[in-house]
Amino acid sequence: MNTVLAPAHRLDRLLAPQSVAIVGASTTPGALGASVLDNLERGGFPGAIHLVNPRRPLIGDRQAVASIDELPEGIDCAILAVPGAAVLDAVRALAARRTGAVVIFSAGFAEGGEAGRAAQNELSAIASQSGMLVLGPNCLGLVNHNAAAALTFVESTIAPTTARERALGIVSQSGAMAAVLGVVVSARDIPISLSVSTGNEAATGVEDFVEHLVADDQTHVVLMLVEQFRDPQRFLAAAAAARRAGKTLVLLHPGTSDAARESAATHTGAMAGDHAVMATLVHRAGVIRVDTLEELADVGEIALRSAPALPEGPAVIGESGAFKALTLDLAERVGLPLPAVDDAGFPSLRDAVPDFVALSNPLDITAQGLVDPEIYRRVIDATLADPRFGSVIVNLIQTDERTTAIKIPPVLAALRAAPPTKPVIVAGMDEGAPVDDATVAALRELGVSYFPSPERVLRALARLTDAATGAVRPPKAAAAASAALPSPGPVIAEYRAKEYLASFGIPFPEGGFAANADEAVRLAERVGYPVVAKAQSAALSHKSDAGGVLLGLDDPAAVRDAWDRLHANVGAYDPSICLDGVLIETMGAQGIELIIGGRREPGWGPVLLIGFGGVTAELNRDVRLIAADLSADEVAAELLQLRGAPLLTGFRGSAPCDVDAVAQLVATLGSVMLAAEEITEIDLNPVVVRPGEQGATAAIALDALIITAPTAQNR
Amino acid sequence: MNTVLAPAHRLDRLLAPQSVAIVGASTTPGALGASVLDNLERGGFPGAIHLVNPRRPLIGDRQAVASIDELPEGIDCAILAVPGAAVLDAVRALAARRTGAVVIFSAGFAEGGEAGRAAQNELSAIASQSGMLVLGPNCLGLVNHNAAAALTFVESTIAPTTARERALGIVSQSGAMAAVLGVVVSARDIPISLSVSTGNEAATGVEDFVEHLVADDQTHVVLMLVEQFRDPQRFLAAAAAARRAGKTLVLLHPGTSDAARESAATHTGAMAGDHAVMATLVHRAGVIRVDTLEELADVGEIALRSAPALPEGPAVIGESGAFKALTLDLAERVGLPLPAVDDAGFPSLRDAVPDFVALSNPLDITAQGLVDPEIYRRVIDATLADPRFGSVIVNLIQTDERTTAIKIPPVLAALRAAPPTKPVIVAGMDEGAPVDDATVAALRELGVSYFPSPERVLRALARLTDAATGAVRPPKAAAAASAALPSPGPVIAEYRAKEYLASFGIPFPEGGFAANADEAVRLAERVGYPVVAKAQSAALSHKSDAGGVLLGLDDPAAVRDAWDRLHANVGAYDPSICLDGVLIETMGAQGIELIIGGRREPGWGPVLLIGFGGVTAELNRDVRLIAADLSADEVAAELLQLRGAPLLTGFRGSAPCDVDAVAQLVATLGSVMLAAEEITEIDLNPVVVRPGEQGATAAIALDALIITAPTAQNR
Repeated sequence: MNTVLAPAHRLDRLLAPQSVAIVGASTTPGALGASVLDNLERGGFPGAIHLVNPRRPLIGDRQAVASIDELPEGIDCAILAVPGAAVLDAVRALAARRTGAVVIFSAGFAEGGEAGRAAQNELSAIASQSGMLVLGPNCLGLVNHNAAAALTFVESTIAPTTARERALGIVSQSGAMAAVLGVVVSARDIPISLSVSTGNEAATGVEDFVEHLVADDQTHVVLMLVEQFRDPQRFLAAAAAARRAGKTLVLLHPGTSDAARESAATHTGAMAGDHAVMATLVHRAGVIRVDTLEELADVGEIALRSAPALPEGPAVIGESGAFKALTLDLAERVGLPLPAVDDAGFPSLRDAVPDFVALSNPLDITAQGLVDPEIYRRVIDATLADPRFGSVIVNLIQTDERTTAIKIPPVLAALRAAPPTKPVIVAGMDEGAPVDDATVAALRELGVSYFPSPERVLRALARLTDAATGAVRPPKAAAAASAALPSPGPVIAEYRAKEYLASFGIPFPEGGFAANADEAVRLAERVGYPVVAKAQSAALSHKSDAGGVLLGLDDPAAVRDAWDRLHANVGAYDPSICLDGVLIETMGAQGIELIIGGRREPGWGPVLLIGFGGVTAELNRDVRLIAADLSADEVAAELLQLRGAPLLTGFRGSAPCDVDAVAQLVATLGSVMLAAEEITEIDLNPVVVRPGEQGATAAIALDALIITAPTAQNR
Repeated sequence: MNTVLAPAHRLDRLLAPQSVAIVGASTTPGALGASVLDNLERGGFPGAIHLVNPRRPLIGDRQAVASIDELPEGIDCAILAVPGAAVLDAVRALAARRTGAVVIFSAGFAEGGEAGRAAQNELSAIASQSGMLVLGPNCLGLVNHNAAAALTFVESTIAPTTARERALGIVSQSGAMAAVLGVVVSARDIPISLSVSTGNEAATGVEDFVEHLVADDQTHVVLMLVEQFRDPQRFLAAAAAARRAGKTLVLLHPGTSDAARESAATHTGAMAGDHAVMATLVHRAGVIRVDTLEELADVGEIALRSAPALPEGPAVIGESGAFKALTLDLAERVGLPLPAVDDAGFPSLRDAVPDFVALSNPLDITAQGLVDPEIYRRVIDATLADPRFGSVIVNLIQTDERTTAIKIPPVLAALRAAPPTKPVIVAGMDEGAPVDDATVAALRELGVSYFPSPERVLRALARLTDAATGAVRPPKAAAAASAALPSPGPVIAEYRAKEYLASFGIPFPEGGFAANADEAVRLAERVGYPVVAKAQSAALSHKSDAGGVLLGLDDPAAVRDAWDRLHANVGAYDPSICLDGVLIETMGAQGIELIIGGRREPGWGPVLLIGFGGVTAELNRDVRLIAADLSADEVAAELLQLRGAPLLTGFRGSAPCDVDAVAQLVATLGSVMLAAEEITEIDLNPVVVRPGEQGATAAIALDALIITAPTAQNR
């Protein structure tokens, strides 16, 4: 986390160098130094190329110097094609020559044990002191097509984009995956602006390059493969900028199978892993997260070629009843809404197909297209023009050249007549069917992606439609703390936590803190019997286990007796704990139990957890992680996504709960997390929701735990 | 459900006709009759071709007769290329000419309203009376490659298999999907024996053709797209035969999104849909069920090319750390187990890679293959030879021709040296990368499938590995009923249901039926106070709602009072109900509540439902549907798959439950469902499981509901 990331304006010497040096230049085929030189020459790199080789004064027909010290000062970018052991000395020498940037392929740094970590720290330090940009180590370099700069040993072809072309950027920590993505994307004739692999990120990271690409006029989509964000807040800011600019970030981030729950002190922490926090917050920022390399490219292609995705689901046009059923299944599985279609509400679509075709979505036009090819044109016209469809998928059974020759012309004619203002995708039903390259090119020219099979279209469109659904909202203002957060931490005793949270408006049972038995009785008299008495000490984290909670106290004698027993019980449990006093409250309300918590993830910031309480709900993981800045309305929508939501809305005749009151409580907790940066965790467990109640008494937190840490650590 | 399916031995006249007639033969390009003739001629159909055309005596250079009546008697197969309205007359005429079989393309029968249904019934009747085979209506015919019989209007190329080739069969109710699958499979150079579309199945169904293909020597894999099985028992029998013969059936059956829960009278019924029953029982029979067309072809290809799948998971060989993480995520998501690998236990694999490569699965051999290509050979050797790996996936980063030229030769060398006895798949990491056709062909020659991207391999292998895990077990014998099932139905009163089920060994609370208050008191004295009293009548299906259950009766007076109150309560609830009497039982045990049920699905037979009780578990759908013939051990394994399973095994320090006792109860219920065919549903809700208890008292059913129907309906 100690990476010194590069200010964006300084990236040019790395990304678009006017002069480069290859340290370890070579003519041996397959040697790194030879491959780098070959890439630069084949790509037509327009700047000066300097070579360093201690043993050979000539590399091919180019002169080489024997050492870095003999290079001119101020070369923009050096590429190190030297063994790992020689890297540090070379970097020092390059810094001394005021080189602008250095690309380091070698492995064996932070990923290679203690010595490697030390060496990488040294790299970071040199970068920081000298101001020299460092890409890597353990990366595969970069290719900037518009600067004709292929600073990599992976065989690369420079393909400059034309001025008006929308281009795609690739940013990957893994060098191998950057190379793989480059091949996958190029094979689909997608223009690439910049592909960069950041490796170990000693002094530049994915955040730098995403910022650069979001600001780049030609780049409209960025594909990312990231294993760990080193500066999440900066990435989230870049994502916000991308959304404002109408650009799409697509992220593949492995880690769903990591049960990364260590260091989680409370229940909330135990249920929410780091990957889930990342997923929650990047989704909130409008980033499209995908699960596979296939999806990464698929989403990227549609986002780049098509008009912007819309929140409405697609019209799906097919030619088979069985395919219609399969599509309904898959759409449900991938969460893609299909707008319902009927005869009455869709007159232009009704006119487009013969009477024997029943209107539905997916629409099965049967084999009618072979007899009446114009049906494709009419159906595409009608669905393109209808704003109830956010996109159109045309699924064609191709089988052979004769069949496609019948079907493709009316499809192209429809698209040419009305250039689509929503994503349109043509998918072959029969993967491997002969498809004319010219057809695919013609579709792409019209902003239409061609997919060889239908399944992946639905998956990709589900992601894009979901992202379009998330509206851009101004960030929620942090609440003004109306009470000071009790110090010192890390654990805040329940009564202090409740006082603090109540000052923001979070509802708790009536009651208060008693420093002696007389006060306890006075409180009980005030709030009314029966009451509960709870032993209070920041050191007592498991009250119930210690006999520190006594319920159903009916009269003053019972309260006095409870005072004594609480002290005796806790003393027996742990003699080192000295109670602050006792919390006296009205007996806990009966109702539906929720668990609501807040957690601050280092680097990322706060998230909230909402879920149903109880063992069964916990085993079923009926919980959701949400951003802390959601409005109460957005929280309510999230609550209703829980599987147990029918419990809140009135299940089997029970009275409905005041979901808005619960949502308000959660939103308030979010405001607290946003306001008080020293809080790392808040746990309200349980929050009791009473069916039939409305307003302030409808949802009450029975317990409250706050854990704090010095602020500096939390960002 | 009234289809008369054809005995298998009579299919030959349809599938491999010696003579055919085209009714509606034509020379108009695109006309059905012309396309059929063209397919037969191009495919080199060796038998006699007869043509019928009422207006043209010559079709090209072939003579035609004017009507079916002029055809010779006993032609094997007629293909109808006539309008739907002419079909019935033609079929009658063909039957009169003792034609062996007829293929009907026309739509507008059972799927086309009342008149269509009547017409289809007439078709069925003619088939039944005449013994003539009928394929369709509303189908696209069939292609039998080894008989050079392309009896379809879809442009088809006959590709006979060689005698030693393993071939794949296609059986689809949808004609379009049969055509699509034919294209998809052929594009992968997979030999097809027979592709048939069955359409509306007036008189032949998928069951006929699956039986045929399971018995066919050359066919080793059958791909199926089915929307509804008309004779499930016959299909399950064919699946059992396929498993015995080592053949693989792969099924795509839409319907997961259909909430088909109508007509479900009890809780069990409400939670289990027809699709789920189908899925449970075909899985039990060893059929591999898939979710998409892509998967259908992917599973089919690996099953056909490779050695049989094994239960052990794959060794995954890759060249990138990020890919390793992605694979771990995806393997977990698709349920594919990856055998764990470490330095100590895998000496030959340890020797195969350099020291800096840490052994793991997936194995990341880094870019070492570019420097030391023989690493592929060594790693493949080591993983092929190790029986802890059930399969091997080799994932190659291809990028360009030069790279693949380095990597492919050692891969091929390893496979040639030791022909694999387990599935081996080579996958490109970079979809769209240039791949040599000769390389793909060479891999296939060695029984190795090549996939252009890695994700689909994992999905397909997960299905195959799962299917290999399901061992072939002899069917469980139905229990001998030790008590007669009480008649008449359909609902059996609780006390009778309990007596009946207890006779098989299902445990209930101690107690019995009382016909009057004195008997009730005597029973209470015998079983011991406190007791529960439950009103008994087959007409009383919601006892609790009617005030028909009274708990905690402590003495004789309370029991007598309860007798009176139960009669009063039920009388007030529904005056038409006359109670048989009252069930007196010991008070229900406290513990973990399960719902256990049995259900007989028309055509399919019995299934069982197991799940946790309570509202939360129900909302979370923590239930599983299992076959009724599972052994107690198999049931125990299924119970432990429930999300709530930790409740049974000792959650948070509570005593573990006797899972075997629960499993025995479920298995016994399965035996009852197998034995008593007149039972359509049994509902044990709740079954209370007591932590810490062992044996007969560990799991007790508190309630029992049985619903029956006349036996004939249930098969």
